[in-house]
Amino acid sequence: MDTSWEASVTDSINAIYLLFSAYLVFVMQLGFAMLCAGSVRAKNAMNIMLTNVVDAVVGSISYYLFGFAFAFGDASNSNPFIGTNYFALKDIPSSSYDYSFFLYQWAFAIAVAGITSGSIAERTQFTAYLFFSFFLTGFVYPVVAHWLWSSNGWLSPNSDSLLFGSGAIDFAGSGVVHLVGGIAGLWGSLIEGPRVGRFDAFGNPVKMRGHNATLVVLGTFLLWFGWFGFNPGSFDKILVPYPNKIDQGNWTSVGRTAVTTTLAGSTAGIVTLFGRRILVGHWDATDVCNGVLGGFVAITSGCSVVEPWAAIVCGFWAAWVLIGLNILALKLKFDDPLEAAQLHGGCGAWGLIFTGLFAKEEFVLQAYNSGKTQVARPSGLILGGGWGLFGAQVVELLSIVVWVSLTMGPLFYALQKLGILRITADEEIAGLDISSHGGYAYEANQEENGPRFYGEYLRMQHQS
Amino acid sequence: MDTSWEASVTDSINAIYLLFSAYLVFVMQLGFAMLCAGSVRAKNAMNIMLTNVVDAVVGSISYYLFGFAFAFGDASNSNPFIGTNYFALKDIPSSSYDYSFFLYQWAFAIAVAGITSGSIAERTQFTAYLFFSFFLTGFVYPVVAHWLWSSNGWLSPNSDSLLFGSGAIDFAGSGVVHLVGGIAGLWGSLIEGPRVGRFDAFGNPVKMRGHNATLVVLGTFLLWFGWFGFNPGSFDKILVPYPNKIDQGNWTSVGRTAVTTTLAGSTAGIVTLFGRRILVGHWDATDVCNGVLGGFVAITSGCSVVEPWAAIVCGFWAAWVLIGLNILALKLKFDDPLEAAQLHGGCGAWGLIFTGLFAKEEFVLQAYNSGKTQVARPSGLILGGGWGLFGAQVVELLSIVVWVSLTMGPLFYALQKLGILRITADEEIAGLDISSHGGYAYEANQEENGPRFYGEYLRMQHQS
Amino acid sequence: MDTSWEASVTDSINAIYLLFSAYLVFVMQLGFAMLCAGSVRAKNAMNIMLTNVVDAVVGSISYYLFGFAFAFGDASNSNPFIGTNYFALKDIPSSSYDYSFFLYQWAFAIAVAGITSGSIAERTQFTAYLFFSFFLTGFVYPVVAHWLWSSNGWLSPNSDSLLFGSGAIDFAGSGVVHLVGGIAGLWGSLIEGPRVGRFDAFGNPVKMRGHNATLVVLGTFLLWFGWFGFNPGSFDKILVPYPNKIDQGNWTSVGRTAVTTTLAGSTAGIVTLFGRRILVGHWDATDVCNGVLGGFVAITSGCSVVEPWAAIVCGFWAAWVLIGLNILALKLKFDDPLEAAQLHGGCGAWGLIFTGLFAKEEFVLQAYNSGKTQVARPSGLILGGGWGLFGAQVVELLSIVVWVSLTMGPLFYALQKLGILRITADEEIAGLDISSHGGYAYEANQEENGPRFYGEYLRMQHQS
Repeated sequence: MDTSWEASVTDSINAIYLLFSAYLVFVMQLGFAMLCAGSVRAKNAMNIMLTNVVDAVVGSISYYLFGFAFAFGDASNSNPFIGTNYFALKDIPSSSYDYSFFLYQWAFAIAVAGITSGSIAERTQFTAYLFFSFFLTGFVYPVVAHWLWSSNGWLSPNSDSLLFGSGAIDFAGSGVVHLVGGIAGLWGSLIEGPRVGRFDAFGNPVKMRGHNATLVVLGTFLLWFGWFGFNPGSFDKILVPYPNKIDQGNWTSVGRTAVTTTLAGSTAGIVTLFGRRILVGHWDATDVCNGVLGGFVAITSGCSVVEPWAAIVCGFWAAWVLIGLNILALKLKFDDPLEAAQLHGGCGAWGLIFTGLFAKEEFVLQAYNSGKTQVARPSGLILGGGWGLFGAQVVELLSIVVWVSLTMGPLFYALQKLGILRITADEEIAGLDISSHGGYAYEANQEENGPRFYGEYLRMQHQS
Repeated sequence: MDTSWEASVTDSINAIYLLFSAYLVFVMQLGFAMLCAGSVRAKNAMNIMLTNVVDAVVGSISYYLFGFAFAFGDASNSNPFIGTNYFALKDIPSSSYDYSFFLYQWAFAIAVAGITSGSIAERTQFTAYLFFSFFLTGFVYPVVAHWLWSSNGWLSPNSDSLLFGSGAIDFAGSGVVHLVGGIAGLWGSLIEGPRVGRFDAFGNPVKMRGHNATLVVLGTFLLWFGWFGFNPGSFDKILVPYPNKIDQGNWTSVGRTAVTTTLAGSTAGIVTLFGRRILVGHWDATDVCNGVLGGFVAITSGCSVVEPWAAIVCGFWAAWVLIGLNILALKLKFDDPLEAAQLHGGCGAWGLIFTGLFAKEEFVLQAYNSGKTQVARPSGLILGGGWGLFGAQVVELLSIVVWVSLTMGPLFYALQKLGILRITADEEIAGLDISSHGGYAYEANQEENGPRFYGEYLRMQHQS
Repeated sequence: MDTSWEASVTDSINAIYLLFSAYLVFVMQLGFAMLCAGSVRAKNAMNIMLTNVVDAVVGSISYYLFGFAFAFGDASNSNPFIGTNYFALKDIPSSSYDYSFFLYQWAFAIAVAGITSGSIAERTQFTAYLFFSFFLTGFVYPVVAHWLWSSNGWLSPNSDSLLFGSGAIDFAGSGVVHLVGGIAGLWGSLIEGPRVGRFDAFGNPVKMRGHNATLVVLGTFLLWFGWFGFNPGSFDKILVPYPNKIDQGNWTSVGRTAVTTTLAGSTAGIVTLFGRRILVGHWDATDVCNGVLGGFVAITSGCSVVEPWAAIVCGFWAAWVLIGLNILALKLKFDDPLEAAQLHGGCGAWGLIFTGLFAKEEFVLQAYNSGKTQVARPSGLILGGGWGLFGAQVVELLSIVVWVSLTMGPLFYALQKLGILRITADEEIAGLDISSHGGYAYEANQEENGPRFYGEYLRMQHQS
């Protein structure tokens, strides 16, 4: 046996792990599509599903051509702000990245615009959507990914010059993915304003229920399934043994990450179940679904570096962040049909802070020191890990808010001023599907002279 | 190269196999949610989906805190009845179990209550559901899992003192999971009584069709997909070579288990297709779906220790067990909206017996003697394997029926007596969704003055 | 450490890769079911979903008994036309094939009839469907698979006597799977004729929209997810290092195959989005879904042997092939409810040609020369690879068209003549679900005296 065989085994194992994780992350695109479709009114279902498909297909090409390069192009002439090589997969496979890594990152990239699509649902022109999705997926998001996840990003915990001696820990992207999508949604929704009829003449909110709770539950479970790729998959490699630990390595942490993810989402779901029961008086399934997702969003940053018990703390507060922001949104007459700004923005921000408080040093060293000898690193403030990590987390949070606001805010504003962002009130009342997409998502029965409802048909049949 | 590298490779391979299997098993929760939703009337869809979500989120916390400990806590001071360590994942990872094992078992645990939820669907108070789900997932089920699957359970085929020199073989849980859920459902459904209107004044059954067959098919296929994690995943480790076999090891058995699972389900589906065609006169898709599931439930016990041809025998009879029990249920005026007691209870019981008849000694030794030298073991009665295994299977079957009856029966009875088990007739006619969950799962069109149906809208548009 | 450990590691890694790929391919069956259901009218939803379930369950048994033997039985007494051993999995596991390989191929086999089911949807008798599905899955398809994928098929690129010194490259089956299914559908649909009302008295097409676009999107994403098993999984083994390449092996090609698949589908989706926008004037979600699938079908043949940029070329033209054939179909009054003949037949044929034009020699050698020393092989005509491969691709294309036409054409014709192929016009207008399957897929509300619609109920409740 030779070392090349060992290398082949290692590469194969890591490729299987990363590729199948990527496939799971891709399922989240389907999850979003179903969640979004179920959460809007039937007359806009086709529209929002098409935006999710478009995020995927347009994102594939833009991420292939330049998105991946902006994010992970870490050549020596690259800089801490944006990557500069690997355009159109040139030089891939490299010594750092194989195709599987690209595929995994692609599945992340296409998810971002899907988050934002929820905030601006039911009232956005489709052409505007194409612009915004292309810009967000191809430029705004990859730049943030470069900051955090490339080897020379200025916030990266893997770089040679660590911010505050620590770098920010955003393992699977509470900030990079969710906060980015949420803040973009915040601006889009603010600039477009609420849907027609969302607040009555006295400013009181009018409930606009999604048309299909089954799709919401379907989407939530699919997202949960996909999150097992999103969080545990973000180690990129599973065959990395830990020094001084018998039988432990990345495979241990991958499993623990799946556990922390599950516990955070579950806790947030339970808190939402009872919290909303107390607040609104009934047991609401879609609320619980959103609560679970809020827990996932929050744990996404620290999933690999916290103990299971801490994940429960994370999920507990994520639920209250979401409940609180939803109440605040109603007060401020902010209308986000999917609660995306509150959920992905709010819980994403909480996730960054949480990691700064509860990260465990041992796990931080394991997740971020692979191949290097054990040294001390800043970790969670509450666990006595000092201010370095906490500070970096706050800097990441603020930087993302500023960057996305400075890029997406003006874009939405310009589109609005040009009159190509929001549809007309007539179109909105009729629904996007009939006005822009050639028909409704559902056809009950089209035969002109046929029975219009099944029940009628059956009755007719019995009478004849 | 050193042995620690070998250990790391082994751990990584097994972790990938087990984690991705766990993710598949988790998909079954979604499958159940869709199957259940489609099988009930629209007015109760939200309710039953919420129960499936709640099984997952409440089950996560209870299984983390104590369920896993009850099931797999096999410390020396532990006993054959119930586990006593690993509470809140203390001492995990241990030399026996890593996080991936916990996650895999968690995905099993949350499935049990979902089975029972079908039996008591459309008429159970949500608060009662919370009690029962917590008790079943957190205590009743883990105890049975300890009996069969821990290293010191009194029925375990892995323990040092094997019952009848054999122990019971319930590889992936025809008994541990499905029979437990089915018997619990049997008692719940018996104590609650049939749904309002299920039997007319003369005692004749009135057909109550589920509201959406598409969801039933979706759920069935998702359950099939998930069963590839449930059965083939139950080896826990895939990198286990077999002595005296070139190129064979657990990887061979894992593949064969996927094949036996597929063949049993398919056979049961075909038999149900033609059997029901003869009995009721049409080709019924939802019947076939239930038939397929019945085949899966039955093969789950012996999937790893029987030949593919035997799996066909298993599926064949599973279909008739289900058909027969469904006829019997109608005669006895037993109303189980999902046929869960018949399907998971009946086919689960048949599965235990089947294994006692058709288990092949070679496969039993491979699945249950890992690391030990080859010795003889009791196997299928029909294949000349003696009475040891068959006897143990019967003992498992009876023990589960008694244990679940003694625990869940009194619980349901007490809840009923306290008046918190079943909803009122008024609520039942209105539907659980509007009475307990704040609204229906589906919203056709909410605008007060808007067109109520799409067809009308289109006609209006053409007239204007 | 010994070589048997190495063999066990290799077998385990390859088994995980192949089994989980098989599970993904199985998801395509669900994807087809949802896509088909959504694309037909509500009154036929149950029927087409049942056909998809039946394809799976009947296909399992027929492929186990003889389909796999016809395809991969490559004993020395076998021949280039049809396999002759491995009936009922006799001698499996062999030195060539383990159970995982059977399972992977089974998932392919059951997909073929699902393609054809789309072409003959909404008007075919269920008993006729059983005949045709059994014959196609059990005989017609396995024979073609033998030609291309067994080690002694006459078109195989792995055989000892390569056609034109090359053999045809149909890596995951643009021809073997999709063209076969599409041509079968073409004949079925031609012989049955259009649906009642599809063309008016003047021969003008009448739009017959599917009843649920959400299911179309759900199905499309599930098919995309499954295609990650279909194409990247078709290497069968992932742990195969490439000579003279550091850190590269099948794992590299597996990843690249996932990338080419994604890029082809995405490009076709984008082209369809804008192409249909120009042609019909709106942004149509279901068109885009079909476009994406057309891109996947086309790249399926060459996915492993082309560069990512070439995949974009492939998808670009696949979209136009589909758009063009759909226009042609309307002109010729050809009615295929799922566009299956156009999509799987047309784009499948284009895929075979594309591979003959753009296959890269380096990748061809890697994918098809495993274990042999590097030699030259014919590759893409446009890339200077000579006429050998291109010629073989054309021969495959023509052979499949002839073979499927000669087998399926007469079968459909005979069924038609016997009066058991097409349902009556009355049944067709009523819908297959009520006429053959005992009821509709959807039940709005069954209570005789209850409120028929939720809105009414709510109003009644408020008035009381």
